[in-house]
Amino acid sequence: MRILITGGTGFLGRKLALALLNKGYLTNTAGAETEIKKVVIFDKFAPQPALPDDPRLEVKTGDITNSDTINSLITEDTNLIFHLAAIVSGEAEENFDLGMQVNLFATYRLLEACRRLGSQPRIVFASSVAVFGGDIPPVIEDSTALTPQTSYGTQKAIGELLINDYSRKGFVDGRALRLPTIVVRPGKPNRAASTFASSIIREPLQGQPAICPVSPEARMWILSPRRAIQNFIHAAELPAKAWGSSRAVALPGLSISIGQMVDDLQEIGGPAVVERISWEPDPFIEKLVYGWPIDFEPKRAQAMGFVTDRSMREIIQAFIDDELNGKFAA
Amino acid sequence: MRILITGGTGFLGRKLALALLNKGYLTNTAGAETEIKKVVIFDKFAPQPALPDDPRLEVKTGDITNSDTINSLITEDTNLIFHLAAIVSGEAEENFDLGMQVNLFATYRLLEACRRLGSQPRIVFASSVAVFGGDIPPVIEDSTALTPQTSYGTQKAIGELLINDYSRKGFVDGRALRLPTIVVRPGKPNRAASTFASSIIREPLQGQPAICPVSPEARMWILSPRRAIQNFIHAAELPAKAWGSSRAVALPGLSISIGQMVDDLQEIGGPAVVERISWEPDPFIEKLVYGWPIDFEPKRAQAMGFVTDRSMREIIQAFIDDELNGKFAA
Repeated sequence: MRILITGGTGFLGRKLALALLNKGYLTNTAGAETEIKKVVIFDKFAPQPALPDDPRLEVKTGDITNSDTINSLITEDTNLIFHLAAIVSGEAEENFDLGMQVNLFATYRLLEACRRLGSQPRIVFASSVAVFGGDIPPVIEDSTALTPQTSYGTQKAIGELLINDYSRKGFVDGRALRLPTIVVRPGKPNRAASTFASSIIREPLQGQPAICPVSPEARMWILSPRRAIQNFIHAAELPAKAWGSSRAVALPGLSISIGQMVDDLQEIGGPAVVERISWEPDPFIEKLVYGWPIDFEPKRAQAMGFVTDRSMREIIQAFIDDELNGKFAA
Repeated sequence: MRILITGGTGFLGRKLALALLNKGYLTNTAGAETEIKKVVIFDKFAPQPALPDDPRLEVKTGDITNSDTINSLITEDTNLIFHLAAIVSGEAEENFDLGMQVNLFATYRLLEACRRLGSQPRIVFASSVAVFGGDIPPVIEDSTALTPQTSYGTQKAIGELLINDYSRKGFVDGRALRLPTIVVRPGKPNRAASTFASSIIREPLQGQPAICPVSPEARMWILSPRRAIQNFIHAAELPAKAWGSSRAVALPGLSISIGQMVDDLQEIGGPAVVERISWEPDPFIEKLVYGWPIDFEPKRAQAMGFVTDRSMREIIQAFIDDELNGKFAA
């Protein structure tokens, strides 16, 4: 089995690649195991830090808006693609054309390259809860209409529609996961408007200051990197028939206030850690955050076996274990 | 005011052009009237029969998948575009690539050409109830998720998302109308799977045989050409603020069984007319029709002032008056 991960040097792509190599196989429809012989990670830049040496791992860099590049990635023996490459919300809002080229047209070209193979490869597409916005009900159900209020959300909603239709036509075997805000992201802040939700945990635990641009009452729908990776692999292993007439699903998550997140941080890290957070409300960010969906009833995802975190404390502890070698700056 | 109608020689485009020329003005946000100085109809073929001579009318033919053609249509003085050009459901299912090129990419290029103007022109986009399918509730509400089960429906749903985002960004002032099945269409059967619903009224009233490929119990959600044209013009006249956070709306319609349609035809035309219908169930068409939405609660459209037909008898009589000069073959 040859697997391609686009956006593969991003923090989720990187974790996914390592998890796949560590697992070594995927379970197919019949329950049988298929060996993972190759994991190709593709991104604009090489991974930083470098990934461990593994003969099964291949790194490719290039521009995903280039058709020839996409066509060269989708080789005849490609069985599974995780399509994570994207221009994030804040950047897609600032640079509309780049968002359209990467989030919409590169997804289309990737689907076309897969279609040309004729082998109906499996594609797992990273969608987002940003497909919801505006006049949304307090709790979002599986049947709630997609009402994106950002270009990023619009482009992800279009990606879902294409994944559905290409699957219905038998061109690919697609699956789209609507990801909650991923908390705690390792590394540096990115250009997603939600980036602060990770910063306020990540920086203080490393002795650095962080700014919280929203009030403690603001709520978010979150999922840890660990559970996100588990869910990506589960999505790839589920048989096609498990998806029914829709190839998109909103993942389960945790609905939590920023105040609760900080309380849980204090419980684990102590008062010195949370004192590193400056509360500086930014009306632009607050307006965006208050427009996001904050609670879901993800019945379908749960019935399909997707998982979520039990608590914010579990999420914070997992970040300390996975990213800080179990130690933090008290 | 210069108006462009794409798909302008199709039966709806043609009727819309004539209705606009006949009306002579549109009412703007403030209630003031703006004179219609030019109506450009664009299509693949010239109108058949030719349209009446009118110095305000201009006919252009060409290929809407050609970028240069689109750019030349969207002149600096274009204030309003009715985007009706489309590959219909049956054909888009047979020829996937043509459907994508016309229904998705030409719509995108049209929006881009409008964006380049910088004048935020108004666009009324013909969407369809085909954006719904699969596991849908018995009555579709304004908040029901779009779940297209055809490539045509997928491409129309994507068009709606683009219209919304380009409007939100201030690139255009867009509006999308989800059209019910239009009954009674004049002319000849087309390649839409729903074409029989017009044939069974149109052909018998002209002394010709017609085949009904579904059983009398099958239901449809329909709207007459007269009301469709009224609604297109209303959509163009509504102020931007009337649309709120969604630029798409499902039009009101009539939920009616094929049996009821034929009963009403008999009431108007007599038994000889309905005897010209042969009932020949076609499992392929029946399966499609049973997958279509048949009842809506179009609260938002009604609140916005969109209209529907009072009865099937009114629809049949309007067809006889508008298309058959008031006479039919008894």
